[in-house]
Parts: sequence; C-alpha cells; structure tokens
Amino acid sequence: MKKVIAGTDIGGTNTEIGLVDYDGKICERLTISSKGYESFEDFIDFLSEKILDSVDGGGYDLTGIGVGAANGNFFKGTIEYAANLEWEGVLPVADLLSKKTGVPVKVTNDANAAASGEKIYGKASGIDDFVMITLGTGLGSGIFAGGKLLYGHDGFAGELGHVRVKDDGRECGCGRKGCLETYVSATGLLRTAKEILSETDEYSLMRNADLKNMQSKDVYKFAVGGDPAALRAFDFTAEILGKALADFTAVLNPEYFFFFGGLANAGDLLLKPAEKYMNDNLMTVYKNKVKLAVSGLKPGEAAILGASALMHE
Amino acid sequence: MKKVIAGTDIGGTNTEIGLVDYDGKICERLTISSKGYESFEDFIDFLSEKILDSVDGGGYDLTGIGVGAANGNFFKGTIEYAANLEWEGVLPVADLLSKKTGVPVKVTNDANAAASGEKIYGKASGIDDFVMITLGTGLGSGIFAGGKLLYGHDGFAGELGHVRVKDDGRECGCGRKGCLETYVSATGLLRTAKEILSETDEYSLMRNADLKNMQSKDVYKFAVGGDPAALRAFDFTAEILGKALADFTAVLNPEYFFFFGGLANAGDLLLKPAEKYMNDNLMTVYKNKVKLAVSGLKPGEAAILGASALMHE
Repeated sequence: MKKVIAGTDIGGTNTEIGLVDYDGKICERLTISSKGYESFEDFIDFLSEKILDSVDGGGYDLTGIGVGAANGNFFKGTIEYAANLEWEGVLPVADLLSKKTGVPVKVTNDANAAASGEKIYGKASGIDDFVMITLGTGLGSGIFAGGKLLYGHDGFAGELGHVRVKDDGRECGCGRKGCLETYVSATGLLRTAKEILSETDEYSLMRNADLKNMQSKDVYKFAVGGDPAALRAFDFTAEILGKALADFTAVLNPEYFFFFGGLANAGDLLLKPAEKYMNDNLMTVYKNKVKLAVSGLKPGEAAILGASALMHE
Repeated sequence: MKKVIAGTDIGGTNTEIGLVDYDGKICERLTISSKGYESFEDFIDFLSEKILDSVDGGGYDLTGIGVGAANGNFFKGTIEYAANLEWEGVLPVADLLSKKTGVPVKVTNDANAAASGEKIYGKASGIDDFVMITLGTGLGSGIFAGGKLLYGHDGFAGELGHVRVKDDGRECGCGRKGCLETYVSATGLLRTAKEILSETDEYSLMRNADLKNMQSKDVYKFAVGGDPAALRAFDFTAEILGKALADFTAVLNPEYFFFFGGLANAGDLLLKPAEKYMNDNLMTVYKNKVKLAVSGLKPGEAAILGASALMHE
C-alpha cells in the first residue's frame, strides 16, 4: 500500500485536501466547504470521513495529516481566534482530527506550511536558512533557521508582515500602524497606486480606469504597459520591501528569501528592484550574499504540499 | 583531575582567560595583552603557552577552549576583519589554537558568547527562545531559537544593533544611517542627551557640566537626580528600544529579552519604560507575554563564562 499524508488547508471558504505520497505527488484531491456546519466538531467529523473515504477508495496507507490554517498553532495543535472562520475561540483541531482518524496530526499557520513545502518539495531543499514570504491580501512568512522552522516561544514567530516600517504609517488590520503588509501585499500595492493618483499629478492611464473596482493585477497590467504611476507604485513597494529585507537579514542572516503568491511573479517589477534596494541597504558583511527567488511550488498545490510537508519535519 | 574549559575573551586591549569547571566556577584567571606581538601566530603561541601553564599548574584536565571576540565566526572558527584588533583580514584562531594546545576550539562573536553564557550559567537555563542584548559602546545581540544559537547562513545572524529604526537617522559606524545602536547604547544615550541640550530649552543641570567629557553614566546620575533633560534622554532611548523589541518579537517571538552591560542596570530608567513601550506596540497575540530582565551574569565574568559555554552547546 502506498503511504500518503493528507495535506489539509483550512481556508475561510473551502478546505482543500490532497493525499500526498512521499515523493510529493498529489495522488487524490478533494474540496469541502469550510462553512455551514452545526459545530466545529461536525466539520471535523465530515472532514475525517472524506479523508478516510478517499484513502480507502484508493487503497492508500494514511500515515498522518498535516493541517495549515491562518492562526494555526504548532505547539498546541489548535487554530486560535481565526478571523476567517465561522468558529470562535480556540479550536483543538489536532486532537479531534487525530481521534477520528487514528493517525498523528500536526497543525501550523499557512505561511509556515508554505515554508515547509518549499523545504521538502520546492527550491529550498538543502537550504537550512531561508525565509518564505507569501504575498496575497497580506504578507505572511515562515522562517527556517538551522534547518528547522522557527516557531518561537508561543509558536507565533515569523509575523514579518507586522514589523513596522513607517512611524505613524498606514492603518493595519491588526489595529496598529505602519506594518509592512500595509505596503507590501496585493492590497498595499493597490493602496499605493490609488494614493499616487489622488495625491500627485503623475500622468497615468489608470485615471481613466474604474478605480473603485481596480485590483492589484490591474496595476500590474498598467505597469507592464509602461504607465508611469503604476511603475512608481511598484518602485515604492519594492523600496519598502528591499529595506525591510535588509533589516530581516541583520536579524536572521538567511541564504534566501523565497516569494510566493501573485505579486511574487511580478518579477522585474518587484523582486528585481527589491533586491537592489536590499543590497543598497545591507551592512557590508551581508552585501550581495542574500538571494531572492520565486517559490518553486505551484499556486494550486502549495498549500496542500506545505501542510503535508509538516509531517516530514 | 578536574575538567575545565578555557573561556577566552579576545578584546582590543587585553585578552582575558578563565579556566571554568563544568559547574561554571572560574578556577583560575589570567590576563594577557592583545597588543604588541610580531604576528597573530606569535600571539596564539603566547596565549597557548599561558593557558597550558595554568592548566598544568593547577593539575586540571583541559577539555576545550571557547573563544569570544568581535567578528568571531562560529562556522569558520575565524575572526574576520575585526576593527579593534591589530591584525588584519581573516584570522584562523580555532585552527592555530587547536594545533598548539591539542584540544577542540570553538569561536563566536562576543554577543553570541554572552547569550551562551546566559543559557548555560545565567538566568536562561531552561529557556529555549530568548535574545541577549549587550549594551555598551554599541548594541550587540545573540539569539537563541528552539534551544540553539541562531547563526544564520554565514554565521552573522543577530546583528540587532544594525536594524534601522529611523529613516535617514543618525550616522552609524557601519556606514549606514538610523541603526538601533546609534540610539540605544551608552554612546547613543549620550548623543541623545547632548542633542536635547543643544536643540531644546529643556531645563537641565547638565548645562553646567563639562559636556565635552561627559559620559553616559553621568547622564544616568543626572537622571537619578531628577534632571528633566536627562530623564527625557532616557525616555527617548526607552521608546526606541521598546518599539524595536516589539518588532523583534514579531520576527522571533522570544520568551525573554535579557540585557547585559552598564545601561542594563539603569533599571527603572530604561528597561521598565522600554517594557511599557514594547507592550504598547506589540500585536495583541504577543502582548504582556514577552519578559525583559537583567542578565544573571556578573560583569567581570560574563565574557569568560560565555566563551567557555560555547563548548557545552
């Protein structure tokens, strides 16, 4: 029987599950809703049933379940106060899921899962010190130091999106101001573009666009087309990112920063200038040693592979 | 025969050596000059001779040598481009010292050595995630994550003194601007006090003092006496420190920040307000969880104990 791990990504809308073999191949995939259950226990019952059905159906040997979720806590095996889920408080996901399925369960937050995925199945194989940065609505991160995920004392290390980069800067969803993710994320880029339009006279075709419904990918399209304001929005974002990476390097001295998510693929518009700004701002001892790269994980597979990779730690 | 480790702290002026037993007791101490040798090899010859004489004299069993030095590199066993030493370039201190003495030698920078000392002999016993901050002319730091020193890819992790806290801030010895240590250090505090005197009308008895020869400990004395400008200098320093600790927490999620050095003992004037500023600026998930404490190592013993602790890692 082929040994598999159930990589499980619990998102606000859907929960994605993949049975992943030990070579990182996703053998089976299924999706269930994360919403509409009577209780969290009911959700776990349904999730367990679906996983076990899939395992039985394919004749696999299930050796464990790895769970990635916003606010997942590795030490406690819980999801705690996740704003994107219907259930409140502390959810003992590992305990419940393990009881139902009879296999060990590990839990972590989605960015740590992505970092694990990069280490086991992506470009970070053999790299012991790196930071995985996920660029989406916010900025998530997972840190590997000395070959291991850095969890910190309470399991909440690696919140690089909430390092402050501006005194009295943009308001952040966390209730504070000036957090990195208010600038460096899809949302942050869009905010920057709109600010440039409203606060400067910079020539821009974006002025003719439907600003209310504009998305970060639209800013990207305008920038690719050479639009000065869109290009300036990317440069501003890259400068803040590059300077932040220089500071993170002084703390962690990583070999690589890997980037995952839509914005990570904006290549020459974001990562290349960010690398220049980083090197301009690094202490001599680090200069031109730290590398930036796009993640080696596929968008549709990263969360599942990352969650399953937890069981290989 | 009693087993001992030679803890060796190579400073710019003197090299301090202590034979430390496995309980952390310094059995023998000696000091040699770090200056005036024909070559680095001559220095190592003399150092080895002195260590072996001391070991023979006391009838000890030397099991290893731990070396702490500015710019000490753990991975390579070298001291690299240390501005405070007479010898230039890369100094293969571990190789040379091991050949001469026949025992294993480990090298690290002085702040990492202090962190190791805190872990093995100080207050951090049983604490796996903490940051040791040394406040002197500059700000040095050593990071423990998951029970191990965090070295990073090139051995240069933990340069928290060179994280930038102000855009276009004070000029730093590293060639950049706004580094934490230009504000939070004995030198930084003094600079702040002098700026307050020259740039504000704040009432201060310091205006009658010999400003040219004033030291940070004088600012401390004035502050203890209730001098408004001196108190403001401490508050300014504590605010910058507290905010920086909040950001470091978002990266590392430590249980403790330990402080070593003269300024660390300024208690209610620095660490207490810094803790308040830190908590005011922490994300909810970390609030009131991270502790600040003065190092448990004695000033005259920390460097030697720290260097010897390296061999217990």
